[in-house]
Amino acid sequence: MNVQFDRIALIGIGLIGSSLAYDIRRLGLAREIVVATRSPDTLKRAKELGLGDRYTTSSADAVEDADLIIVSVPVGASESVAKEIAGRLKPGAIVTDVGSTKASVIAQMLPHMPEHVHFIPGHPLAGTEKSGPDAGFPGLFEGRWCIFTPVAGTDVAAMKRLRSFWEALGSKVDEMDAEHHDKVLAIVSHLPHIIAYNIVGTADDLETVTESEVIKYSASGFRDFTRLAASDPTMWRDVCLHNRDAILEMLARFSEDLAYLQRAIRWGEGDKIFELFTRTRAIRRSIVQAGQDVDAPDFGRPHALDKK
Amino acid sequence: MNVQFDRIALIGIGLIGSSLAYDIRRLGLAREIVVATRSPDTLKRAKELGLGDRYTTSSADAVEDADLIIVSVPVGASESVAKEIAGRLKPGAIVTDVGSTKASVIAQMLPHMPEHVHFIPGHPLAGTEKSGPDAGFPGLFEGRWCIFTPVAGTDVAAMKRLRSFWEALGSKVDEMDAEHHDKVLAIVSHLPHIIAYNIVGTADDLETVTESEVIKYSASGFRDFTRLAASDPTMWRDVCLHNRDAILEMLARFSEDLAYLQRAIRWGEGDKIFELFTRTRAIRRSIVQAGQDVDAPDFGRPHALDKK
Repeated sequence: MNVQFDRIALIGIGLIGSSLAYDIRRLGLAREIVVATRSPDTLKRAKELGLGDRYTTSSADAVEDADLIIVSVPVGASESVAKEIAGRLKPGAIVTDVGSTKASVIAQMLPHMPEHVHFIPGHPLAGTEKSGPDAGFPGLFEGRWCIFTPVAGTDVAAMKRLRSFWEALGSKVDEMDAEHHDKVLAIVSHLPHIIAYNIVGTADDLETVTESEVIKYSASGFRDFTRLAASDPTMWRDVCLHNRDAILEMLARFSEDLAYLQRAIRWGEGDKIFELFTRTRAIRRSIVQAGQDVDAPDFGRPHALDKK
Repeated sequence: MNVQFDRIALIGIGLIGSSLAYDIRRLGLAREIVVATRSPDTLKRAKELGLGDRYTTSSADAVEDADLIIVSVPVGASESVAKEIAGRLKPGAIVTDVGSTKASVIAQMLPHMPEHVHFIPGHPLAGTEKSGPDAGFPGLFEGRWCIFTPVAGTDVAAMKRLRSFWEALGSKVDEMDAEHHDKVLAIVSHLPHIIAYNIVGTADDLETVTESEVIKYSASGFRDFTRLAASDPTMWRDVCLHNRDAILEMLARFSEDLAYLQRAIRWGEGDKIFELFTRTRAIRRSIVQAGQDVDAPDFGRPHALDKK
């Protein structure tokens, strides 16, 4: 056992919240886990899964006497959670979150945080396309990055404590300012999701190609996009609305590049196309070398003979 | 042994050609495999891998007395192969190909095919992001679709023989006309590859986010695109140039849809965003139900705890 906190309150118990619950329990990081979610159905399911020691639909009740509060809700709900819990936070408590956009979360939560707590915005880069408490699993954060975007004047000791927590889960911790985080995530995460959602929508709308053909032949490329496009709609709608400026900037660049490529296709400029298609190969190699993806062909999906 | 052909000539010995070689041998589908490729280096490698019984850099020599000729080259090279082999084809031989675009391949090859052979264009929807003779493996075609796009007046018996060949490899065979094939593939395969290449290029060009940040944090979505964007540049340049019209049509639709989504993000229209993000989830479910992708989160990529 490696107890770091007496009581941890998990506000929100979806994929991230439930994975946190499994790991806190497995690693013995808290004496008590309090689970809070607004939805009675989700709370019931969390209970059935045995994710916490106490359960409540009230975030305010949940944070009572908690040493660490982790808010894992769609980013658009950050302000209402902050308002609800503000008056019940114990002096010295650490409040953190896991939201995919950081400037917006800070703007929504910081004004409500009392002086006597440590508010440290965070973002674990971990997850899958599944959502809800049933999607969580132990080890989700192992080997993944967690980015802190601390505000000015953050207590060094509190930050160190929170860092130890994430490191106990197996994560590597980085720090950057919220604006930079939002730009980085716009390109590595938000734009890919938006593009994936968009292309799947385009395919769904065709008249000349049937939906059953799209599905039947999807292994020739399309299916790779459908994974991201199956992610939680509420979470991703909120990301779009709350990292608007950085996303619009990346979308503008993407569209500009696509117009260039489209023109090269129209005019048969094979060398321009070839140059791009060669350059992008190198990036894949770097990602595999950095251990950020598997080297096995097809993401290591099983091929027919493997199954026999 | 289940010999279907006395001599099979493989023109081109990359990922597809070499996978064919492994399966023809493994399943005993031919008495003799002749391997031809223009590149002496590739031919040498094919020899080292033991892919054939005879090896030549001359396609013309390779097809001599062959009963089945499978052309597996970038689609832009189809016409020059057709010209080279035309005068040496034996009466009654079946000539097929594996190209990703079909109207163009027919336009390039059909005029050169002598009356006394059976030219049956084909397209196995199989492959990985790897290329070259080292990328091939037995079983690549097992459980995958192979689409024939026969021209008018094709001999029924020859088509049946070719169908049996692909079925022996474990493939399911479909037939459609070349124009429809090119539209279907434009959306399920060509557009996804082009979009993947494009977004990886956009990320590579940023000034405010470093390349090392893109790589480091790529697991949050971006890496899914890098697999397709690591595909063979020559093959994909040729696809772009040889299925131009269908690709430009799909690109126009995609861009139109993206402009709509971008506008919804700019104006904070959460319900429009939510509607799309919900609709796309259903497509993923259908693909998984149809057995066209794995249901495991993250394409079944191993998570940290699995490896231990």
